[in-house]
Amino acid sequence: MSASYRSLRVNEERLWQSLMDLAAIGATERGGVRRLALSDLDRAGRDLVTEWARDAGLTVTVDQIGNVFMRRAGRNPSRAPVMTGSHIDTQPSGGKFDGNYGVLAGLEVIRTLNDHKIETEAPIEVVFWTNEEGARFAPAMMGSSVFSGAVSLEGAYRAQDTDGRSVRDELVRIGYLGSEQPGAHRVAAYIETHIEQGPVLEDSGTLIGVVGGVLGIRWFDCTVTGMEAHAGPTPMALRKDALQVAACLMQEVVAIALRSPPDGRGTVGTVQVLPSSRNVIPGRVTFSVDLRNNTDENVDQMVDAFKARAEVVAREAGVAIAIDPVASYAAQIFNPICIDAIARATDALGYSRMPVVSGAGHDAVYLNRCAPTGMIFIPCKDGISHNEIEHAEAEHVAAGANVLLHTLLELTEDIAPR
Amino acid sequence: MSASYRSLRVNEERLWQSLMDLAAIGATERGGVRRLALSDLDRAGRDLVTEWARDAGLTVTVDQIGNVFMRRAGRNPSRAPVMTGSHIDTQPSGGKFDGNYGVLAGLEVIRTLNDHKIETEAPIEVVFWTNEEGARFAPAMMGSSVFSGAVSLEGAYRAQDTDGRSVRDELVRIGYLGSEQPGAHRVAAYIETHIEQGPVLEDSGTLIGVVGGVLGIRWFDCTVTGMEAHAGPTPMALRKDALQVAACLMQEVVAIALRSPPDGRGTVGTVQVLPSSRNVIPGRVTFSVDLRNNTDENVDQMVDAFKARAEVVAREAGVAIAIDPVASYAAQIFNPICIDAIARATDALGYSRMPVVSGAGHDAVYLNRCAPTGMIFIPCKDGISHNEIEHAEAEHVAAGANVLLHTLLELTEDIAPR
Repeated sequence: MSASYRSLRVNEERLWQSLMDLAAIGATERGGVRRLALSDLDRAGRDLVTEWARDAGLTVTVDQIGNVFMRRAGRNPSRAPVMTGSHIDTQPSGGKFDGNYGVLAGLEVIRTLNDHKIETEAPIEVVFWTNEEGARFAPAMMGSSVFSGAVSLEGAYRAQDTDGRSVRDELVRIGYLGSEQPGAHRVAAYIETHIEQGPVLEDSGTLIGVVGGVLGIRWFDCTVTGMEAHAGPTPMALRKDALQVAACLMQEVVAIALRSPPDGRGTVGTVQVLPSSRNVIPGRVTFSVDLRNNTDENVDQMVDAFKARAEVVAREAGVAIAIDPVASYAAQIFNPICIDAIARATDALGYSRMPVVSGAGHDAVYLNRCAPTGMIFIPCKDGISHNEIEHAEAEHVAAGANVLLHTLLELTEDIAPR
Repeated sequence: MSASYRSLRVNEERLWQSLMDLAAIGATERGGVRRLALSDLDRAGRDLVTEWARDAGLTVTVDQIGNVFMRRAGRNPSRAPVMTGSHIDTQPSGGKFDGNYGVLAGLEVIRTLNDHKIETEAPIEVVFWTNEEGARFAPAMMGSSVFSGAVSLEGAYRAQDTDGRSVRDELVRIGYLGSEQPGAHRVAAYIETHIEQGPVLEDSGTLIGVVGGVLGIRWFDCTVTGMEAHAGPTPMALRKDALQVAACLMQEVVAIALRSPPDGRGTVGTVQVLPSSRNVIPGRVTFSVDLRNNTDENVDQMVDAFKARAEVVAREAGVAIAIDPVASYAAQIFNPICIDAIARATDALGYSRMPVVSGAGHDAVYLNRCAPTGMIFIPCKDGISHNEIEHAEAEHVAAGANVLLHTLLELTEDIAPR
């Protein structure tokens, strides 16, 4: 941290007020926000944020998937911008902070730099990415995935909501179909500030999570086929109860995660039982498996352990067990330069910090493919997100923005041009 | 067994042919039968069986719930009849043997007695009870439950099918609303012959099951309430996963049954998971529990063991567990005179036998309330019933009818008048 800026802080009240003003667009009765991607409300939100950006002297550009870049010039126009941001679309019953915080923290950093007439060597850009939530149009993280080249623009354009309206048509309708080719933008580095959406920081009483990466994810379905039979006339010894075998394997999903600390996670979220009758022994049960860990190697070891156990159980119980892959997401390891800059900024500010991993996806997952990337987490109440009661304390919100401010001050001076 | 009748046997071919002829009414393409209670096909089946009865010299009477009694006079008109029978309605995708066998085995016994001009001291009545299956009108075992006084005639009359047609209207329509008050009939004893509908006899290579009684049943729902949370950001140690607790308790249902040999049975047939999303830790799970055992005391001990375990698990896991009663059916212990007579007849015939319990309900459950009652089981292929592929071997079908024949020969002479 440059000595001259050591005492620099964002304006906590202004940042909070901006969050509340943006949350008023699509506000729900129960204190949440419903502002679906590319809806009229999304347009109103985009209009408000870009108006604020222009008021702060930023140059606004829009690319062909509707990602919006708000640029504050640097001393050196040849330097690629250091980028920060997130998204402003929400879940159908979303909260005020998910995504919106990352965008408005970036804007508050800009306003603070303006207040103090501080120039940076590299430009800073605040970005909001289109349709991060994926609630109206699949897949999620659409804008950042197209920007990174992971998803084609044409594929994203074709996505339709349940009423048959396409992403492209809705971009045109709300006036956010830009001309810039996605990914044409240079990015020196990308830092995203976000509420944790989990309970770890709150549980440990830590203010700042320095995100080391994003967990790799493996999704599959497991189907156990036993023998359907009447619950009354069939003695225990002559049963092939698919649900009992499934229950054993469901517990194995958790046992495997517990054997893979600290980042291994195992979840069974859905169960279908056939024939699903109170007095019939289930003949077939399908359940979902979600395994996560910090590296692809570690999560693949968890998958292998599950498959090995399923084989043994199938043999012992005399049932058939099928495992069908559904999806796989590579683990992401963020850039050490970014991670270190965030940690240094946190320490200089005197905030507590801990290394964390992100269990959920963020736009930063895709930016990590094309630029040095890092994330700053702040606590969220009870770890609850994607919910109208999602909440973060104003003090924590300001702290995360201060970490972003000082991280950007370092990166705009130091990071290698790209 | 009276020495003079020791060599008496039913006519296997005639019995089999009657089963096939009755199964032709409502025959399905895949070899099963669809003959729902009080339908046109049920009327056709009733007409055929009563025509056969009249051909055999029996007197046919019908009561107000449509139960049909087909009486062969005895030497002593003051004696109450020994009754045998079952039902001729079927499941929507039923088989040829469930119920029908018990009725036609009784008719074949009559025909055999006629062939040999054998008179019995007490009369014999062959009965078919209305709507045993409960597939079209609830509850099941309607005719026998009204006969026994367990269910009111008015209540049964009001039952409607999914098209809103009532039992009473349908009885009138098909011409089987009789005048006799249900239960007015005297019954000296009741013996029901039935396919096992389970795998025990086949598995042990035994021909005749001497049924000691019907398992008591306790049905309840168990609901586990934990904490819904995202699968990614929530570490294992901070979860309250309702499904994992439920899986543990599902296995406890089976463990309790295994600790209650030989008749304890435990089944979880249905599971509902909320919110049922692949990447969300379940916040609430409800599953059904079906516990059975040979006496009410034993099955209630199983329920208590489950509740005690649920309390411990709830405390350990920090979740709420609710247990909601759904239904309870008392265990039935059949009459020792009937059980012994069936065992003696089986031994005299040189057939293998074993004591069994019925895990499923039968009309005999209700007859057991008003008369000495017993049941004879024969093997059914793979234990499969309520299915179009339900099958029994002709040799086994005849063997069960022979046991019935000699049991009735004993009971019509010896059992105390009622």
